[in-house]
Amino acid sequence: MVQYKDIEKAYGTLSSIVHKTPLLTSRMFNEHSGNEVFLKAENLQRAGAFKIRGAYNKIYSLSPEERCRGVVAHSSGNHAQGVALAGQLLGVRVTVVMPKGSVPNKVEGAKSYGAKVVFSEDSSDAREQLAKQLKREHGYVPVPPFDDDDIIAGQGTVTVEISRQQSDLDYLFVPVGGGGLISGNAIAAKHLFPKIKVVGVETEPANDCYQTFRQKKIVRIAPPKTIADGMRTQAIGERNFEIIMKYVDDVITVTDDQVIAMMKFFAERMKVVVEPTGAVAPAAVFHNVARLSGKKAAAIISGGNVDPKFLKQIL
Amino acid sequence: MVQYKDIEKAYGTLSSIVHKTPLLTSRMFNEHSGNEVFLKAENLQRAGAFKIRGAYNKIYSLSPEERCRGVVAHSSGNHAQGVALAGQLLGVRVTVVMPKGSVPNKVEGAKSYGAKVVFSEDSSDAREQLAKQLKREHGYVPVPPFDDDDIIAGQGTVTVEISRQQSDLDYLFVPVGGGGLISGNAIAAKHLFPKIKVVGVETEPANDCYQTFRQKKIVRIAPPKTIADGMRTQAIGERNFEIIMKYVDDVITVTDDQVIAMMKFFAERMKVVVEPTGAVAPAAVFHNVARLSGKKAAAIISGGNVDPKFLKQIL
Repeated sequence: MVQYKDIEKAYGTLSSIVHKTPLLTSRMFNEHSGNEVFLKAENLQRAGAFKIRGAYNKIYSLSPEERCRGVVAHSSGNHAQGVALAGQLLGVRVTVVMPKGSVPNKVEGAKSYGAKVVFSEDSSDAREQLAKQLKREHGYVPVPPFDDDDIIAGQGTVTVEISRQQSDLDYLFVPVGGGGLISGNAIAAKHLFPKIKVVGVETEPANDCYQTFRQKKIVRIAPPKTIADGMRTQAIGERNFEIIMKYVDDVITVTDDQVIAMMKFFAERMKVVVEPTGAVAPAAVFHNVARLSGKKAAAIISGGNVDPKFLKQIL
Repeated sequence: MVQYKDIEKAYGTLSSIVHKTPLLTSRMFNEHSGNEVFLKAENLQRAGAFKIRGAYNKIYSLSPEERCRGVVAHSSGNHAQGVALAGQLLGVRVTVVMPKGSVPNKVEGAKSYGAKVVFSEDSSDAREQLAKQLKREHGYVPVPPFDDDDIIAGQGTVTVEISRQQSDLDYLFVPVGGGGLISGNAIAAKHLFPKIKVVGVETEPANDCYQTFRQKKIVRIAPPKTIADGMRTQAIGERNFEIIMKYVDDVITVTDDQVIAMMKFFAERMKVVVEPTGAVAPAAVFHNVARLSGKKAAAIISGGNVDPKFLKQIL
């Protein structure tokens, strides 16, 4: 299992690579929530999401021989862009498998960083199968989206940064897709803030981790229809399961409508563009799903890569 | 004339009141510009613009008797919101005169902070006259938008913050409406970065300061038609003129189309919502109007209070 020291090491690796994203605050957000809220703005991260952290840490850890073979990743979008950018920065050839229904600007993003994009059917299983096939055919090294120690350690650096921006926290809210982000950040949070409660957040249609957490075994759901494309993963990973069961205090859900209202508030009141998945954890605090009062709560805005057409609809 | 020590004092007054806004960077922005660019994100400031800085510093400096009388301000929008919020925080009654054509969410913003809003005709002269009338009738203390020492000192704190985020700069680009923001920041910049060049930026239709700077006397223009509503001021103030002639190195202009392209880049690539006036100084650097190369340049994003309908059009 990933240890805090792995995350600290990744933090060193990434320090000159990633943006130190701001921790945003808003009196209006606090008043609506009834808590003092700190929003970690990974939508302002390079390539528009936290994914560069894990992707860079993973590719950086490869041997020279592995780097020469090139890497393959499968992703609904942000992981693809993160791997593409990391590959570009480290001079490693990248192929990404993306579902046909991916947000167009996420596909363009991956291509703009020099990656080759291959399309699969829309389910997370389908894109995983295609990535495996490409690995066999071309010898590419896989860069998994979440079920990997180096990925988990890289994503956990978000909370190391938070701890340098805000020394006192009662709660940390993290969105859960495949579980990479929450795994790394739960480990970091419990080390850096000994009394903190870590809460995972999903949308209701994509509640596989919510079920997993309660049934204490990995639950796999049908490809969910949810506005939050980063949550369309059908099940969390093995490593993520172990870490979540050990370090996470609760998993809760928000509705797609709550996510949309949150995105609108972000754009109109806080002047930041947040993608649906990025608004999931903040929405839980904004709408106070966990019914807290007067707590210091951080929530991770995981990304900002929303289709401009969709943002238009919301405004 | 305002001295650097006045700005430093204002910085102390404001330290627990204003957000320390991030200095955003983007490789794509840098590549497009050909310079290393630091964007001071005052669109993420409280009430969505830098105006709270001057407004709070001004009202804070009033005597108890003046505070009891209440204040009046005239503004195309952001100054109104800044004064309204400052009044709310300091327990001072606020009346604001806004042109009929104001962006609706700026009017709503002022009202939401408890201000009374009175509408005038659209020219900056018309709203100034109405504010004077209300002052005579009700004894309100005026909070001028730019031609005032406390306002200038407050606005100058933006660059004090920048200097704590980035110690080395060759250029500072500042939007010019009435000249309050550039006055304070030119004084601060020349003190904190001895070799810095300070450049004012207007849109072409609103080029009164551009003309003023070249003719070395205050030029008053007809109410300009420009996308940047914060630039519709017809002339800079007396105090602002003196400071600009002493401390500013150049005044340049961008087109409305360059401003729109900048806003689109901000929303789609950098995930921040910027209003037209807020995009003016960055647009000069992005489109490299000043034809610099390899310089370290900061540009102030003055605000983010754009009408959501207009943002929709741009996307």
